[in-house]
Amino acid sequence: MTIPDTVALDRSDPLASLREQFLLPEGKVYLDGNSLGALPKAAMARIEAVVRKEWGQDLISSWNSNDWINLPITVGEKIATLMGAAPGQVISCDNVSINLFKLIVTALQLQMGRKVILTQKDNFPTDLYMTEGVGALLGDQRCVTRSVPADQLVEAMDTDIALLLLTQVNFRDGRLHDIEAITRAAHANGILVLWDLAHSAGVVPLELDRWQVDMAVGCGYKFLNGGPGAPAFLYLATRHQDKVSQPLSGWLGHAEPFAFEPGYRPAPGVSRYLGGTPGILGMSALDAALDVFDGFTIDQIRGKSSAMTALFIDGVRSASECSECRVVTPLVPEERGSQVSLAHPRAYGIAQALIEAGVVVDFRAPDIVRFGFSPLYNSYRDVADALRQLLRILAAGEHLQARFDTRAKVT
Amino acid sequence: MTIPDTVALDRSDPLASLREQFLLPEGKVYLDGNSLGALPKAAMARIEAVVRKEWGQDLISSWNSNDWINLPITVGEKIATLMGAAPGQVISCDNVSINLFKLIVTALQLQMGRKVILTQKDNFPTDLYMTEGVGALLGDQRCVTRSVPADQLVEAMDTDIALLLLTQVNFRDGRLHDIEAITRAAHANGILVLWDLAHSAGVVPLELDRWQVDMAVGCGYKFLNGGPGAPAFLYLATRHQDKVSQPLSGWLGHAEPFAFEPGYRPAPGVSRYLGGTPGILGMSALDAALDVFDGFTIDQIRGKSSAMTALFIDGVRSASECSECRVVTPLVPEERGSQVSLAHPRAYGIAQALIEAGVVVDFRAPDIVRFGFSPLYNSYRDVADALRQLLRILAAGEHLQARFDTRAKVT
Repeated sequence: MTIPDTVALDRSDPLASLREQFLLPEGKVYLDGNSLGALPKAAMARIEAVVRKEWGQDLISSWNSNDWINLPITVGEKIATLMGAAPGQVISCDNVSINLFKLIVTALQLQMGRKVILTQKDNFPTDLYMTEGVGALLGDQRCVTRSVPADQLVEAMDTDIALLLLTQVNFRDGRLHDIEAITRAAHANGILVLWDLAHSAGVVPLELDRWQVDMAVGCGYKFLNGGPGAPAFLYLATRHQDKVSQPLSGWLGHAEPFAFEPGYRPAPGVSRYLGGTPGILGMSALDAALDVFDGFTIDQIRGKSSAMTALFIDGVRSASECSECRVVTPLVPEERGSQVSLAHPRAYGIAQALIEAGVVVDFRAPDIVRFGFSPLYNSYRDVADALRQLLRILAAGEHLQARFDTRAKVT
Repeated sequence: MTIPDTVALDRSDPLASLREQFLLPEGKVYLDGNSLGALPKAAMARIEAVVRKEWGQDLISSWNSNDWINLPITVGEKIATLMGAAPGQVISCDNVSINLFKLIVTALQLQMGRKVILTQKDNFPTDLYMTEGVGALLGDQRCVTRSVPADQLVEAMDTDIALLLLTQVNFRDGRLHDIEAITRAAHANGILVLWDLAHSAGVVPLELDRWQVDMAVGCGYKFLNGGPGAPAFLYLATRHQDKVSQPLSGWLGHAEPFAFEPGYRPAPGVSRYLGGTPGILGMSALDAALDVFDGFTIDQIRGKSSAMTALFIDGVRSASECSECRVVTPLVPEERGSQVSLAHPRAYGIAQALIEAGVVVDFRAPDIVRFGFSPLYNSYRDVADALRQLLRILAAGEHLQARFDTRAKVT
């Protein structure tokens, strides 16, 4: 891969114009959009308007006049269009952990007589911690977690299992689950599915309705570019909504929040999964960030994502400098998300040396460097630049410097 | 009360200079800071810096370089100083509803063998809804709610009761509970207390440690001026912290979140009440807003608050135009928060006519108009202007216009 090659690729990229819609860090190649997406210019403008006008001037009337009250639904519906979900099933609220809690409890409610949550041993830790939290609260009689390696999930499906909780794209190695096939297998055993789409939404084609997914959660601040700690989202299929309640029954999930009634009556549909007052600043940024997707398809985004990860993987595998790097992300494009993870005994040093060289990646203990590719703003030139720096660092032994100890950085 | 009188009061007001630190709505008297606090200029500047520099340029590194990771604690400690809480007991996170859930469950955990939550019939609805949610989740064997009128709380205290959950300042009538006395009575019966300080923090003197309060929650967007849907806070006394866990055990409450361990180990102290990733935009605004309090005491703030509410109450009670208005807020300053509530059969019309006249108040069904006084930015002149408009509207019968039907507005 040469620089001219990537210039040609960028020239023919149907998404190339989107890069201009972001304020990117100066002089850097940012490959950590799978951890925190870059800043859309529209989000910057929106936040300034929300602060100065909506909060500063319109103040309390903004709940109506600027439609703050419907923002969780407005934002939810925008995310729904990226996931193959018909209206009325997605809201934006809280964070992933809390939304997991609400939906895990919902699943146990729907699955009377079953109490096991099946999950994957190396699922994202917060997913495991939340099932542990539910189990500790409800007791072994009502909730037990069973974690198995990914390749034993299907055989572990039995009639004790209420819910299968999986993250589609593994945060560490980038491996991608086949939601449709696994959901079908789960349903054949009477098991509901809850998919964590933190590393999928906005970058992997999803057909939640067509695949008959029951529940999903996901993150607003990765590939959706909603800003640091942006509100998360949850999806609950229409067929389940009116059978359930959820325990975090705050006032905005009430059928008539402003009637201030003493007793709780859940709002119709998925809105009952709202609770406390939403953070309007963060949710407004996410709302504006989602407009960047307008006019483009997830298939276009996925096409570019796959091409970028392939280009990077091919570069690593064909370079002698990388002989000690192991590509732990699947080599088959259909089996990976939008990141490439390299295992290396000195991964921490590689990550730090890359960051110093202006290529922003991250490290995951004990030995992984992650390169996240965000098709909305990363260019093919970014891929080439990252690879060039990686090879230079490895050739020069920069990653071996003593100051790059193996202490994990906080990201 | 004449305009010259209030000019003199404003001139001798030790807090008068603070008004300049807010961007107030042009041409309006804003008396709804008990619902949404006004915009501190410092919050506006901070948000712009967080968006453009911290998110836009520094991106993922901001978790360390801009100390995002410690923001829940930084903000919590600032709030702690307003409530008489020593360090290590307050964090900012989530919203009031979710923090109620965490602490209600904690109280039941600490009070093995007791299962009743005692609360007040006209507590803020979300407090009632959350106890209902916990009860529905855990079942009658583990959690039952008992609601009684305010004047029957002490006699209702028996040995079945695990937790007393009260809001210090009632949202409807502004009546203020004596936290110290009620907490003492509760403790005498082995009952833990959880105080909702939504309408207290930042405007009422609090001595949580000295009063031996067990737990508290409160709101960032009312008298703390943190912006719409600002993160809430929770207080848990040190003596309880290491005995408890909480069920919303997300990754940021883990002892080592970035070790990505498969099993949950709670962080030391109150940090275990963190869960998912915090909303950095909203929390940064709150952080900056809290600096407005620097150099002023809560006693100064309370002094001005009491003077403003007294001035307004006296004006209403001495005006013949207000003969149909009933002041439902206690007349004794020590028994009220920083709002005055008037009951009137055409309260909705009064609120709407006031808003049209530029005096921003709110309506609470069925018959209450609320006037919230925020000593940091409201002036005595604001009090006089609001009163003058109220008398004018009542004299002219503006509130009786047909277009002001009794449909509740959404605020």
